[in-house]
Amino acid sequence: MEKMKRIERVIAMTKIFIDHPHHLFPYKYFCDRFNVAKSTLSEDVSAIKFSMENFGMGHLETMPGANGGVWFVPDSTDQEDQDFLLDVAKQLSNPDRILPGNLIYMTDLLCDPQIVSRLGEIFMKKLHYLKPDCIMTVETRGIPLALLVARAFNVPLVMARHGSFVTEGSSVSINYVSGSAKTIQTMAMPKRALHPKENVLIIDDLMKGGGTAHGLVKLAEELGANVVGKAFLIEAVEPTKKIISNYTALLRLYKIDEINNKIDIRPI
Amino acid sequence: MEKMKRIERVIAMTKIFIDHPHHLFPYKYFCDRFNVAKSTLSEDVSAIKFSMENFGMGHLETMPGANGGVWFVPDSTDQEDQDFLLDVAKQLSNPDRILPGNLIYMTDLLCDPQIVSRLGEIFMKKLHYLKPDCIMTVETRGIPLALLVARAFNVPLVMARHGSFVTEGSSVSINYVSGSAKTIQTMAMPKRALHPKENVLIIDDLMKGGGTAHGLVKLAEELGANVVGKAFLIEAVEPTKKIISNYTALLRLYKIDEINNKIDIRPI
Repeated sequence: MEKMKRIERVIAMTKIFIDHPHHLFPYKYFCDRFNVAKSTLSEDVSAIKFSMENFGMGHLETMPGANGGVWFVPDSTDQEDQDFLLDVAKQLSNPDRILPGNLIYMTDLLCDPQIVSRLGEIFMKKLHYLKPDCIMTVETRGIPLALLVARAFNVPLVMARHGSFVTEGSSVSINYVSGSAKTIQTMAMPKRALHPKENVLIIDDLMKGGGTAHGLVKLAEELGANVVGKAFLIEAVEPTKKIISNYTALLRLYKIDEINNKIDIRPI
Repeated sequence: MEKMKRIERVIAMTKIFIDHPHHLFPYKYFCDRFNVAKSTLSEDVSAIKFSMENFGMGHLETMPGANGGVWFVPDSTDQEDQDFLLDVAKQLSNPDRILPGNLIYMTDLLCDPQIVSRLGEIFMKKLHYLKPDCIMTVETRGIPLALLVARAFNVPLVMARHGSFVTEGSSVSINYVSGSAKTIQTMAMPKRALHPKENVLIIDDLMKGGGTAHGLVKLAEELGANVVGKAFLIEAVEPTKKIISNYTALLRLYKIDEINNKIDIRPI
Protein backbone atom coordinates (compact mmCIF):
# COMPACT_ATOMS: atom_id res chain seq x y z
CA MET A 1 0.00 0.00 0.00
CA GLU A 2 1.41 3.40 -0.90
CA LYS A 3 1.94 6.02 1.74
CA MET A 4 -0.98 8.26 2.45
CA LYS A 5 -1.68 11.56 4.04
CA ARG A 6 -1.57 11.74 7.80
CA ILE A 7 -5.20 12.79 8.03
CA GLU A 8 -6.42 9.66 6.24
CA ARG A 9 -4.24 7.45 8.37
CA VAL A 10 -5.37 8.88 11.70
CA ILE A 11 -9.03 8.58 10.66
CA ALA A 12 -8.54 4.89 9.90
CA MET A 13 -6.57 4.37 13.12
CA THR A 14 -9.28 6.10 15.11
CA LYS A 15 -11.84 3.67 13.67
CA ILE A 16 -9.67 0.70 14.64
CA PHE A 17 -9.17 1.96 18.20
CA ILE A 18 -12.87 2.70 18.74
CA ASP A 19 -13.96 -0.67 17.40
CA HIS A 20 -11.62 -2.43 19.84
CA PRO A 21 -11.71 -0.70 23.22
CA HIS A 22 -9.02 -1.90 25.65
CA HIS A 23 -7.35 -3.98 22.96
CA LEU A 24 -3.56 -3.68 23.03
CA PHE A 25 -2.21 -3.00 19.54
CA PRO A 26 1.56 -3.38 19.14
CA TYR A 27 3.01 -0.37 17.29
CA LYS A 28 4.16 -2.83 14.69
CA TYR A 29 0.56 -3.62 13.81
CA PHE A 30 -0.03 -0.07 12.64
CA CYS A 31 3.45 0.37 11.12
CA ASP A 32 2.82 -2.68 8.94
CA ARG A 33 -0.77 -1.87 8.13
CA PHE A 34 -0.10 1.73 7.16
CA ASN A 35 3.46 1.32 5.93
CA VAL A 36 4.96 4.03 8.17
CA ALA A 37 7.94 4.36 10.44
CA LYS A 38 7.48 4.18 14.17
CA SER A 39 8.37 7.86 14.58
CA THR A 40 5.58 8.85 12.19
CA LEU A 41 3.19 6.54 13.96
CA SER A 42 4.04 8.09 17.33
CA GLU A 43 2.98 11.46 16.00
CA ASP A 44 -0.28 9.99 14.71
CA VAL A 45 -0.98 8.39 18.08
CA SER A 46 -0.23 11.71 19.79
CA ALA A 47 -2.73 13.52 17.57
CA ILE A 48 -5.47 10.97 18.33
CA LYS A 49 -4.62 11.03 22.04
CA PHE A 50 -4.75 14.81 22.12
CA SER A 51 -8.05 15.03 20.29
CA MET A 52 -9.77 12.34 22.35
CA GLU A 53 -8.66 13.89 25.62
CA ASN A 54 -9.46 17.39 24.46
CA PHE A 55 -13.07 16.35 23.81
CA GLY A 56 -13.35 14.04 26.82
CA MET A 57 -14.00 11.13 24.45
CA GLY A 58 -11.32 8.76 25.64
CA HIS A 59 -7.68 8.08 26.29
CA LEU A 60 -4.92 6.36 24.41
CA GLU A 61 -2.75 4.52 26.87
CA THR A 62 0.67 3.23 25.96
CA MET A 63 2.96 0.57 27.29
CA PRO A 64 6.64 0.65 26.33
CA GLY A 65 8.80 -2.35 25.65
CA ALA A 66 8.84 -5.40 23.41
CA ASN A 67 5.36 -6.49 24.43
CA GLY A 68 4.13 -2.93 24.50
CA GLY A 69 1.75 -0.99 22.34
CA VAL A 70 -1.19 1.28 22.53
CA TRP A 71 -4.85 0.85 23.47
CA PHE A 72 -7.96 2.97 23.61
CA VAL A 73 -10.16 3.54 26.66
CA PRO A 74 -13.46 5.30 25.87
CA ASP A 75 -14.41 8.16 28.13
CA SER A 76 -17.03 10.84 28.47
CA THR A 77 -17.30 13.95 30.59
CA ASP A 78 -19.05 13.72 33.97
CA GLN A 79 -21.52 16.31 32.72
CA GLU A 80 -22.38 14.20 29.67
CA ASP A 81 -22.86 11.13 31.88
CA GLN A 82 -25.07 13.02 34.29
CA ASP A 83 -27.17 14.50 31.46
CA PHE A 84 -27.54 11.08 29.91
CA LEU A 85 -28.59 9.42 33.17
CA LEU A 86 -31.05 12.24 33.85
CA ASP A 87 -32.57 11.61 30.45
CA VAL A 88 -32.83 7.85 31.06
CA ALA A 89 -34.43 8.52 34.47
CA LYS A 90 -36.86 10.92 32.82
CA GLN A 91 -37.85 8.33 30.25
CA LEU A 92 -38.31 5.72 32.99
CA SER A 93 -40.48 8.15 34.98
CA ASN A 94 -43.15 8.21 32.28
CA PRO A 95 -46.30 7.01 34.11
CA ASP A 96 -47.32 4.98 31.03
CA ARG A 97 -44.61 2.59 32.18
CA ILE A 98 -46.42 1.61 35.38
CA LEU A 99 -47.46 -2.03 35.29
CA PRO A 100 -49.74 -3.75 37.79
CA GLY A 101 -47.85 -5.07 40.82
CA ASN A 102 -45.44 -2.20 41.46
CA LEU A 103 -43.46 -2.79 38.29
CA ILE A 104 -42.05 -0.62 35.51
CA TYR A 105 -41.93 -1.52 31.86
CA MET A 106 -38.37 -0.85 30.80
CA THR A 107 -37.48 -3.55 28.30
CA ASP A 108 -37.60 -1.07 25.41
CA LEU A 109 -34.85 1.11 26.92
CA LEU A 110 -32.81 -1.95 27.87
CA CYS A 111 -33.03 -3.15 24.24
CA ASP A 112 -32.04 0.16 22.67
CA PRO A 113 -28.48 -0.37 21.43
CA GLN A 114 -27.52 3.32 21.73
CA ILE A 115 -28.75 3.53 25.32
CA VAL A 116 -27.10 0.34 26.51
CA SER A 117 -23.87 1.28 24.67
CA ARG A 118 -23.66 4.51 26.64
CA LEU A 119 -24.61 2.75 29.88
CA GLY A 120 -21.94 0.14 29.20
CA GLU A 121 -19.30 2.85 28.90
CA ILE A 122 -20.50 4.61 32.05
CA PHE A 123 -20.27 1.38 34.06
CA MET A 124 -16.81 0.74 32.62
CA LYS A 125 -15.68 4.24 33.54
CA LYS A 126 -16.92 3.87 37.12
CA LEU A 127 -15.63 0.34 37.64
CA HIS A 128 -12.50 0.38 35.51
CA TYR A 129 -10.32 -0.20 38.58
CA LEU A 130 -11.95 -3.60 39.26
CA LYS A 131 -10.26 -5.07 36.16
CA PRO A 132 -12.81 -7.85 35.63
CA ASP A 133 -11.98 -10.83 33.41
CA CYS A 134 -15.62 -11.26 32.53
CA ILE A 135 -19.11 -9.84 33.06
CA MET A 136 -21.80 -12.12 34.50
CA THR A 137 -25.56 -11.76 34.39
CA VAL A 138 -28.69 -13.88 34.44
CA GLU A 139 -31.22 -14.13 31.64
CA THR A 140 -33.14 -12.30 30.22
CA ARG A 141 -33.79 -8.63 30.53
CA GLY A 142 -30.32 -7.65 31.71
CA ILE A 143 -28.44 -9.42 28.90
CA PRO A 144 -28.19 -6.48 26.44
CA LEU A 145 -26.89 -4.16 29.17
CA ALA A 146 -24.41 -6.74 30.46
CA LEU A 147 -23.18 -7.45 26.91
CA LEU A 148 -22.36 -3.81 26.28
CA VAL A 149 -20.66 -3.49 29.65
CA ALA A 150 -18.59 -6.48 28.52
CA ARG A 151 -17.91 -4.74 25.19
CA ALA A 152 -16.75 -1.57 26.97
CA PHE A 153 -14.35 -3.62 29.11
CA ASN A 154 -13.37 -5.84 26.13
CA VAL A 155 -14.07 -9.01 28.13
CA PRO A 156 -16.53 -11.87 27.55
CA LEU A 157 -20.06 -12.08 28.92
CA VAL A 158 -21.19 -15.18 30.80
CA MET A 159 -24.88 -15.85 31.32
CA ALA A 160 -26.59 -17.81 34.03
CA ARG A 161 -29.92 -19.32 33.07
CA HIS A 162 -33.04 -20.34 34.91
CA GLY A 163 -32.93 -24.11 35.09
CA SER A 164 -30.39 -26.18 33.20
CA PHE A 165 -30.14 -26.41 29.42
CA VAL A 166 -29.20 -29.30 27.23
CA THR A 167 -27.38 -27.07 24.75
CA GLU A 168 -24.85 -25.89 27.30
CA GLY A 169 -23.27 -29.12 28.54
CA SER A 170 -22.62 -29.96 32.15
CA SER A 171 -23.49 -27.15 34.49
CA VAL A 172 -23.57 -26.10 38.11
CA SER A 173 -26.83 -24.92 39.59
CA ILE A 174 -27.86 -23.21 42.81
CA ASN A 175 -31.12 -22.34 44.49
CA TYR A 176 -31.86 -18.78 45.48
CA VAL A 177 -34.74 -16.79 46.87
CA SER A 178 -36.01 -14.12 44.52
CA GLY A 179 -37.28 -11.27 46.67
CA SER A 180 -39.95 -10.17 44.25
CA ALA A 181 -41.40 -13.64 43.72
CA LYS A 182 -40.69 -14.79 47.32
CA THR A 183 -40.09 -18.26 45.94
CA ILE A 184 -37.11 -20.52 45.68
CA GLN A 185 -35.74 -20.50 42.16
CA THR A 186 -32.89 -22.22 40.38
CA MET A 187 -30.20 -20.75 38.21
CA ALA A 188 -27.46 -22.61 36.40
CA MET A 189 -24.29 -21.92 34.52
CA PRO A 190 -22.31 -24.18 32.18
CA LYS A 191 -19.12 -25.32 33.88
CA ARG A 192 -17.06 -24.27 30.91
CA ALA A 193 -18.42 -20.71 30.89
CA LEU A 194 -16.49 -19.54 33.93
CA HIS A 195 -12.99 -20.55 34.96
CA PRO A 196 -11.65 -20.82 38.50
CA LYS A 197 -9.92 -17.65 39.79
CA GLU A 198 -11.51 -15.45 37.13
CA ASN A 199 -12.45 -11.98 38.32
CA VAL A 200 -16.16 -11.53 37.76
CA LEU A 201 -18.20 -8.34 37.66
CA ILE A 202 -21.93 -8.99 38.13
CA ILE A 203 -24.28 -6.74 36.16
CA ASP A 204 -28.07 -6.62 36.28
CA ASP A 205 -30.73 -4.11 35.34
CA LEU A 206 -32.66 -3.89 38.60
CA MET A 207 -31.85 -4.73 42.21
CA LYS A 208 -34.58 -4.79 44.81
CA GLY A 209 -33.75 -7.05 47.76
CA GLY A 210 -30.64 -8.42 46.07
CA GLY A 211 -31.78 -12.05 46.03
CA THR A 212 -30.94 -12.63 42.39
CA ALA A 213 -27.57 -10.87 42.67
CA HIS A 214 -26.80 -12.91 45.77
CA GLY A 215 -27.62 -16.05 43.76
CA LEU A 216 -25.20 -14.92 41.04
CA VAL A 217 -22.46 -14.39 43.62
CA LYS A 218 -23.03 -17.88 45.02
CA LEU A 219 -23.04 -19.39 41.54
CA ALA A 220 -19.78 -17.65 40.60
CA GLU A 221 -18.16 -18.81 43.85
CA GLU A 222 -19.44 -22.33 43.29
CA LEU A 223 -17.44 -22.31 40.04
CA GLY A 224 -14.34 -21.06 41.86
CA ALA A 225 -14.50 -17.54 40.45
CA ASN A 226 -13.80 -14.37 42.35
CA VAL A 227 -16.56 -11.75 42.42
CA VAL A 228 -14.89 -8.33 42.24
CA GLY A 229 -18.04 -6.22 41.98
CA LYS A 230 -21.82 -6.01 41.61
CA ALA A 231 -23.45 -3.23 39.66
CA PHE A 232 -26.99 -2.39 38.67
CA LEU A 233 -28.67 0.14 36.46
CA ILE A 234 -31.39 0.68 39.07
CA GLU A 235 -31.42 0.17 42.82
CA ALA A 236 -34.90 0.16 44.37
CA VAL A 237 -35.20 1.86 47.75
CA GLU A 238 -37.75 -0.76 48.82
CA PRO A 239 -37.10 -3.14 50.47
CA THR A 240 -34.60 -1.22 52.58
CA LYS A 241 -33.06 -4.44 53.83
CA LYS A 242 -30.78 -5.84 51.12
CA ILE A 243 -29.16 -9.24 51.15
CA ILE A 244 -26.03 -7.85 49.44
CA SER A 245 -23.75 -4.91 50.19
CA ASN A 246 -20.90 -3.09 48.42
CA TYR A 247 -22.61 -2.57 45.09
CA THR A 248 -22.80 0.21 42.53
CA ALA A 249 -25.99 1.58 41.00
CA LEU A 250 -26.58 4.40 38.53
CA LEU A 251 -30.22 5.20 39.26
CA ARG A 252 -32.35 4.95 42.38
CA LEU A 253 -36.03 4.05 42.26
CA TYR A 254 -37.75 5.79 45.15
CA LYS A 255 -41.38 5.02 44.52
CA ILE A 256 -43.91 3.69 42.04
CA ASP A 257 -47.17 5.38 42.98
CA GLU A 258 -49.92 3.52 41.16
CA ILE A 259 -52.68 5.65 42.73
CA ASN A 260 -51.27 9.04 41.72
CA ASN A 261 -49.73 7.63 38.54
CA LYS A 262 -46.17 8.72 39.31
CA ILE A 263 -42.76 7.11 39.19
CA ASP A 264 -39.91 8.67 41.17
CA ILE A 265 -36.56 7.56 39.80
CA ARG A 266 -33.40 9.65 39.78
CA PRO A 267 -29.67 9.37 39.11
CA ILE A 268 -27.70 8.63 42.27
CA MET B 1 -14.65 26.68 22.12
CA GLU B 2 -11.73 28.04 20.14
CA LYS B 3 -11.00 26.79 16.67
CA MET B 4 -8.79 23.78 16.43
CA LYS B 5 -6.68 22.04 13.88
CA ARG B 6 -8.46 20.02 11.23
CA ILE B 7 -6.79 16.80 12.31
CA GLU B 8 -8.17 17.04 15.84
CA ARG B 9 -11.63 17.85 14.55
CA VAL B 10 -11.82 14.95 12.11
CA ILE B 11 -10.63 12.52 14.80
CA ALA B 12 -13.45 13.65 17.10
CA MET B 13 -15.97 13.55 14.25
CA THR B 14 -14.85 10.05 13.32
CA LYS B 15 -15.52 8.94 16.91
CA ILE B 16 -19.02 10.45 16.82
CA PHE B 17 -19.87 8.79 13.49
CA ILE B 18 -18.60 5.37 14.56
CA ASP B 19 -20.47 5.49 17.87
CA HIS B 20 -23.73 6.23 16.04
CA PRO B 21 -23.95 4.14 12.87
CA HIS B 22 -26.83 5.14 10.56
CA HIS B 23 -27.64 8.18 12.68
CA LEU B 24 -28.36 11.26 10.56
CA PHE B 25 -26.38 14.24 11.84
CA PRO B 26 -27.43 17.64 10.45
CA TYR B 27 -24.38 19.61 9.30
CA LYS B 28 -25.43 22.22 11.81
CA TYR B 29 -24.74 19.77 14.65
CA PHE B 30 -21.06 19.61 13.76
CA CYS B 31 -20.80 23.32 12.79
CA ASP B 32 -22.09 24.26 16.25
CA ARG B 33 -20.12 21.65 18.13
CA PHE B 34 -16.81 22.45 16.46
CA ASN B 35 -17.42 26.10 15.71
CA VAL B 36 -16.66 25.88 12.00
CA ALA B 37 -18.27 27.09 8.79
CA LYS B 38 -20.16 24.65 6.63
CA SER B 39 -17.54 24.86 3.88
CA THR B 40 -14.82 23.78 6.32
CA LEU B 41 -17.04 21.01 7.60
CA SER B 42 -17.64 19.72 4.08
CA GLU B 43 -13.91 19.31 3.63
CA ASP B 44 -13.68 17.44 6.94
CA VAL B 45 -16.51 15.13 5.92
CA SER B 46 -14.79 14.52 2.58
CA ALA B 47 -11.57 13.52 4.33
CA ILE B 48 -13.39 11.04 6.57
CA LYS B 49 -15.39 9.69 3.65
CA PHE B 50 -12.27 9.24 1.56
CA SER B 51 -10.36 7.49 4.34
CA MET B 52 -13.20 5.14 5.29
CA GLU B 53 -13.81 4.13 1.69
CA ASN B 54 -10.12 3.82 0.93
CA PHE B 55 -9.76 1.27 3.76
CA GLY B 56 -13.12 -0.43 3.17
CA MET B 57 -14.18 0.57 6.67
CA GLY B 58 -17.41 2.36 5.84
CA HIS B 59 -19.22 5.08 3.96
CA LEU B 60 -20.39 8.55 4.81
CA GLU B 61 -23.68 9.15 3.09
CA THR B 62 -25.14 12.60 2.69
CA MET B 63 -28.61 13.96 2.11
CA PRO B 64 -28.95 17.55 0.87
CA GLY B 65 -31.66 19.98 1.91
CA ALA B 66 -33.05 21.50 5.08
CA ASN B 67 -33.61 18.12 6.74
CA GLY B 68 -30.39 16.76 5.33
CA GLY B 69 -27.12 15.84 6.88
CA VAL B 70 -24.59 13.08 6.98
CA TRP B 71 -24.48 9.57 8.40
CA PHE B 72 -22.05 6.73 8.70
CA VAL B 73 -22.53 3.19 7.46
CA PRO B 74 -19.86 0.73 8.68
CA ASP B 75 -18.38 -1.54 6.05
CA SER B 76 -15.68 -4.13 5.65
CA THR B 77 -14.10 -5.77 2.65
CA ASP B 78 -15.55 -9.04 1.39
CA GLN B 79 -12.16 -10.63 2.01
CA GLU B 80 -12.16 -9.50 5.66
CA ASP B 81 -15.69 -10.85 6.11
CA GLN B 82 -14.77 -14.17 4.56
CA ASP B 83 -11.62 -14.49 6.67
CA PHE B 84 -13.58 -13.64 9.80
CA LEU B 85 -16.34 -16.18 9.07
CA LEU B 86 -13.72 -18.83 8.27
CA ASP B 87 -12.16 -18.16 11.65
CA VAL B 88 -15.53 -18.41 13.45
CA ALA B 89 -16.27 -21.66 11.60
CA LYS B 90 -12.84 -22.99 12.57
CA GLN B 91 -13.45 -22.17 16.23
CA LEU B 92 -16.88 -23.84 16.08
CA SER B 93 -15.31 -26.94 14.49
CA ASN B 94 -13.26 -27.67 17.60
CA PRO B 95 -14.37 -31.19 18.59
CA ASP B 96 -14.26 -30.17 22.28
CA ARG B 97 -17.50 -28.37 21.48
CA ILE B 98 -19.46 -31.54 20.81
CA LEU B 99 -22.17 -32.05 23.41
CA PRO B 100 -24.27 -35.19 23.84
CA GLY B 101 -27.36 -35.18 21.61
CA ASN B 102 -25.91 -33.78 18.38
CA LEU B 103 -25.32 -30.34 19.84
CA ILE B 104 -22.47 -27.81 19.77
CA TYR B 105 -21.41 -25.62 22.66
CA MET B 106 -21.23 -22.13 21.21
CA THR B 107 -22.44 -19.79 23.93
CA ASP B 108 -18.90 -18.51 24.54
CA LEU B 109 -18.54 -17.24 20.96
CA LEU B 110 -22.06 -15.82 20.99
CA CYS B 111 -21.18 -13.89 24.19
CA ASP B 112 -17.90 -12.49 22.90
CA PRO B 113 -18.60 -8.79 22.24
CA GLN B 114 -15.93 -8.48 19.53
CA ILE B 115 -17.25 -11.51 17.63
CA VAL B 116 -20.92 -10.52 17.78
CA SER B 117 -20.02 -6.90 16.88
CA ARG B 118 -18.38 -8.08 13.67
CA LEU B 119 -21.22 -10.52 12.95
CA GLY B 120 -23.73 -7.71 13.50
CA GLU B 121 -21.96 -5.59 10.89
CA ILE B 122 -21.78 -8.47 8.43
CA PHE B 123 -25.52 -9.11 8.76
CA MET B 124 -26.19 -5.39 8.33
CA LYS B 125 -24.05 -5.26 5.23
CA LYS B 126 -25.83 -8.23 3.65
CA LEU B 127 -29.35 -7.13 4.62
CA HIS B 128 -29.03 -3.36 4.45
CA TYR B 129 -31.59 -3.22 1.63
CA LEU B 130 -34.35 -4.66 3.88
CA LYS B 131 -34.43 -1.44 5.92
CA PRO B 132 -35.84 -3.03 9.09
CA ASP B 133 -37.40 -0.85 11.79
CA CYS B 134 -36.40 -3.36 14.45
CA ILE B 135 -34.62 -6.66 15.04
CA MET B 136 -36.56 -9.48 16.68
CA THR B 137 -35.26 -12.57 18.44
CA VAL B 138 -36.27 -15.02 21.14
CA GLU B 139 -34.44 -15.57 24.41
CA THR B 140 -31.73 -16.52 25.35
CA ARG B 141 -28.68 -17.54 23.41
CA GLY B 142 -29.36 -15.39 20.34
CA ILE B 143 -29.86 -12.13 22.26
CA PRO B 144 -26.26 -10.84 22.16
CA LEU B 145 -26.02 -11.44 18.39
CA ALA B 146 -29.43 -9.87 17.73
CA LEU B 147 -28.55 -6.84 19.86
CA LEU B 148 -25.42 -6.12 17.87
CA VAL B 149 -27.25 -6.60 14.59
CA ALA B 150 -29.70 -4.00 15.96
CA ARG B 151 -26.76 -1.76 16.87
CA ALA B 152 -25.30 -2.04 13.37
CA PHE B 153 -28.68 -1.05 11.86
CA ASN B 154 -29.27 1.59 14.59
CA VAL B 155 -32.72 0.17 15.35
CA PRO B 156 -34.19 -1.31 18.55
CA LEU B 157 -34.18 -4.97 19.51
CA VAL B 158 -37.40 -6.69 20.53
CA MET B 159 -37.29 -9.98 22.41
CA ALA B 160 -39.87 -12.74 22.53
CA ARG B 161 -39.79 -14.84 25.68
CA HIS B 162 -40.76 -18.36 26.59
CA GLY B 163 -44.00 -18.07 28.50
CA SER B 164 -45.38 -14.74 29.63
CA PHE B 165 -43.75 -12.44 32.14
CA VAL B 166 -45.30 -10.19 34.73
CA THR B 167 -42.66 -7.51 34.24
CA GLU B 168 -43.61 -6.94 30.62
CA GLY B 169 -47.29 -6.03 30.78
CA SER B 170 -49.97 -7.42 28.53
CA SER B 171 -48.58 -9.66 25.86
CA VAL B 172 -49.50 -11.82 22.91
CA SER B 173 -48.46 -15.44 22.89
CA ILE B 174 -48.38 -18.20 20.31
CA ASN B 175 -47.68 -21.90 20.33
CA TYR B 176 -45.05 -23.36 18.07
CA VAL B 177 -43.36 -26.67 17.47
CA SER B 178 -39.65 -26.66 18.18
CA GLY B 179 -38.04 -29.13 15.82
CA SER B 180 -35.25 -30.10 18.16
CA ALA B 181 -37.50 -30.73 21.15
CA LYS B 182 -40.44 -32.01 19.05
CA THR B 183 -42.76 -30.47 21.58
CA ILE B 184 -45.27 -27.67 21.52
CA GLN B 185 -43.83 -24.60 23.17
CA THR B 186 -45.10 -21.11 23.90
CA MET B 187 -43.47 -17.80 23.19
CA ALA B 188 -44.80 -14.39 24.07
CA MET B 189 -44.08 -10.76 23.33
CA PRO B 190 -45.28 -7.65 25.17
CA LYS B 191 -47.87 -5.85 23.06
CA ARG B 192 -46.04 -2.59 23.41
CA ALA B 193 -42.72 -3.99 22.15
CA LEU B 194 -43.75 -4.16 18.51
CA HIS B 195 -45.97 -1.73 16.63
CA PRO B 196 -48.31 -2.57 13.75
CA LYS B 197 -46.77 -2.11 10.27
CA GLU B 198 -43.21 -2.14 11.63
CA ASN B 199 -40.69 -3.86 9.39
CA VAL B 200 -39.11 -6.67 11.37
CA LEU B 201 -35.91 -8.58 10.70
CA ILE B 202 -35.75 -11.86 12.61
CA ILE B 203 -32.30 -12.91 13.86
CA ASP B 204 -31.32 -16.12 15.60
CA ASP B 205 -28.12 -18.03 16.17
CA LEU B 206 -29.07 -21.45 14.81
CA MET B 207 -31.78 -22.69 12.47
CA LYS B 208 -32.45 -26.40 12.15
CA GLY B 209 -35.98 -27.14 11.02
CA GLY B 210 -37.06 -23.53 11.34
CA GLY B 211 -39.78 -24.14 13.95
CA THR B 212 -38.64 -21.40 16.29
CA ALA B 213 -38.17 -18.90 13.44
CA HIS B 214 -41.61 -19.80 12.13
CA GLY B 215 -42.99 -19.10 15.60
CA LEU B 216 -41.30 -15.70 15.59
CA VAL B 217 -42.84 -14.90 12.20
CA LYS B 218 -46.30 -15.85 13.48
CA LEU B 219 -45.81 -13.81 16.64
CA ALA B 220 -44.72 -10.73 14.67
CA GLU B 221 -47.70 -11.09 12.34
CA GLU B 222 -50.03 -11.53 15.30
CA LEU B 223 -48.88 -8.10 16.46
CA GLY B 224 -49.53 -6.63 13.00
CA ALA B 225 -45.86 -6.26 12.08
CA ASN B 226 -44.34 -6.99 8.69
CA VAL B 227 -41.51 -9.56 8.60
CA VAL B 228 -39.01 -8.35 5.99
CA GLY B 229 -36.35 -10.99 6.56
CA LYS B 230 -35.05 -13.92 8.57
CA ALA B 231 -31.35 -14.44 9.15
CA PHE B 232 -29.28 -16.92 11.13
CA LEU B 233 -25.66 -17.29 12.04
CA ILE B 234 -25.82 -21.04 11.35
CA GLU B 235 -28.10 -23.09 9.17
CA ALA B 236 -28.04 -26.82 9.87
CA VAL B 237 -28.25 -29.08 6.81
CA GLU B 238 -30.32 -31.57 8.82
CA PRO B 239 -33.27 -31.74 8.70
CA THR B 240 -33.35 -30.98 4.99
CA LYS B 241 -37.05 -30.13 5.16
CA LYS B 242 -37.41 -26.63 6.62
CA ILE B 243 -40.66 -25.02 7.68
CA ILE B 244 -39.43 -21.60 6.49
CA SER B 245 -37.93 -20.37 3.22
CA ASN B 246 -36.25 -17.18 1.97
CA TYR B 247 -33.74 -16.81 4.74
CA THR B 248 -30.10 -15.79 5.02
CA ALA B 249 -27.39 -17.70 6.87
CA LEU B 250 -23.67 -17.06 7.24
CA LEU B 251 -22.46 -20.54 8.14
CA ARG B 252 -23.70 -24.02 7.26
CA LEU B 253 -23.47 -26.93 9.69
CA TYR B 254 -23.04 -30.10 7.66
CA LYS B 255 -22.46 -32.68 10.32
CA ILE B 256 -21.69 -33.32 13.96
CA ASP B 257 -19.95 -36.67 14.03
CA GLU B 258 -19.89 -37.81 17.64
CA ILE B 259 -18.23 -41.12 16.79
CA ASN B 260 -15.26 -39.69 14.90
CA ASN B 261 -15.23 -36.54 17.02
CA LYS B 262 -15.61 -34.11 14.13
CA ILE B 263 -17.73 -31.07 13.39
CA ASP B 264 -18.13 -29.93 9.79
CA ILE B 265 -19.20 -26.31 9.65
CA ARG B 266 -18.25 -23.84 6.93
CA PRO B 267 -19.07 -20.36 5.65
CA ILE B 268 -21.76 -20.40 2.96
